[in-house]
Amino acid sequence: MTGKLFVIGVGPGDPELLTLKGARILREVPCLCVPKGREEGSSLALSIVQKAVDLTGKEIIEAHFPMKKTAGSAQEAAPSDARVLDTKWNETVETVSAVLARGTDMAFITIGDPTIYSTFFYLYDRLLELNPELPIEFVPGISSINAAAARVPLSLSLADEKIAIVPATYSPDLEKLLGSFDTLVLMKVYKVFDTVRKTLEKAGLAEKAVYVARAGMEDERVVADIRKVTESDLNYFSVIIVRK
Amino acid sequence: MTGKLFVIGVGPGDPELLTLKGARILREVPCLCVPKGREEGSSLALSIVQKAVDLTGKEIIEAHFPMKKTAGSAQEAAPSDARVLDTKWNETVETVSAVLARGTDMAFITIGDPTIYSTFFYLYDRLLELNPELPIEFVPGISSINAAAARVPLSLSLADEKIAIVPATYSPDLEKLLGSFDTLVLMKVYKVFDTVRKTLEKAGLAEKAVYVARAGMEDERVVADIRKVTESDLNYFSVIIVRK
Repeated sequence: MTGKLFVIGVGPGDPELLTLKGARILREVPCLCVPKGREEGSSLALSIVQKAVDLTGKEIIEAHFPMKKTAGSAQEAAPSDARVLDTKWNETVETVSAVLARGTDMAFITIGDPTIYSTFFYLYDRLLELNPELPIEFVPGISSINAAAARVPLSLSLADEKIAIVPATYSPDLEKLLGSFDTLVLMKVYKVFDTVRKTLEKAGLAEKAVYVARAGMEDERVVADIRKVTESDLNYFSVIIVRK
Repeated sequence: MTGKLFVIGVGPGDPELLTLKGARILREVPCLCVPKGREEGSSLALSIVQKAVDLTGKEIIEAHFPMKKTAGSAQEAAPSDARVLDTKWNETVETVSAVLARGTDMAFITIGDPTIYSTFFYLYDRLLELNPELPIEFVPGISSINAAAARVPLSLSLADEKIAIVPATYSPDLEKLLGSFDTLVLMKVYKVFDTVRKTLEKAGLAEKAVYVARAGMEDERVVADIRKVTESDLNYFSVIIVRK
């Protein structure tokens, strides 16, 4: 009998935003798999869980979880590193598979929600290749999008309104998108903040754009007009919400 | 001293998808406000909370919470009812304000997440008019969007992908939207399901469209090809996710 893999979204940072279900499963499983990548989120997922659940006596596996190369993400690997990345991915798949194969249930934790920009899905495809019958359950988490909107507070959508969620690297398309959407959520704004700000200012949208960093955490920043965002406000865990 | 108003997203149906924070606040506050409208969700929010938290001895206020008129929503009010609606809205604002004015903390519960298609925000504007200093805190909840994706399971977005969330009444724009988005989430599909299905079939997208009803509930339905959705699968709490 193989163990069951739970993929648990632990929310955006506030340990209390873990769900009752996530907390229960984390108490029950003997083993946690914690992604260990280059991005800041790697250690955050574990620190969130540690504040909500007693992990004493549990096996904690740090899995190499390198990032996929994507357009505009300066912190990710150069093509020459592709082979190294592939080896590391396979190591992670083997580590996770070995734990499950010995019949141990395991929780893979990921910040936010597993279905929103979580690299777990890359791992998932490889795990399914090895074992198409893998018992797996996804437990949703509060995404940084909902948490940020709650902290402003603003409604992302009412009645028949439309929302677009796009990485901030698409900022040149901002005006076009706002022509057909009521709310625009810009993700991954950290590395391209200045470009996004300039684009929004040019479009006359700066005062309709709210910057939220580390929503729900002690050092959270909510800036209602992105022209007022300073260098010290900038953070890896940030979104911009533009509401028409 | 006025009481504090907590607006709590109780998730899409599974009581365990309530957050630790939502559950704690619901245990602490002496009074709950439960929206009582025409839509099925009205009673669901309370039934979710009742399964997760002991409400014995708490004051439960049923607030009239009529729906705003929106395009394509057959169950909502005709324009001739507008004055009646307005009176009912004002009654709700007065009821909530009166409880807070006597210094009682109150939790307003709403299914899913308060920032995603929750009518609470209409009430919010009116409450702020009465009391601009109203102490209020929004507690995010798992939205039906994230819960549905987790149950398929599928990723809504990876790397630099884009998501559009639109009411299903926009289905004629489907093909155009899929030209520039990787994932399309169609909300409020219940009343227009046949039209949406026909549009997706015509666009050759039926097999890429997943229908999810009552995600995470006992009578959940996940149908991986929307051509296979039957009359008995149709439900008010449903979404369609189209993944390119």
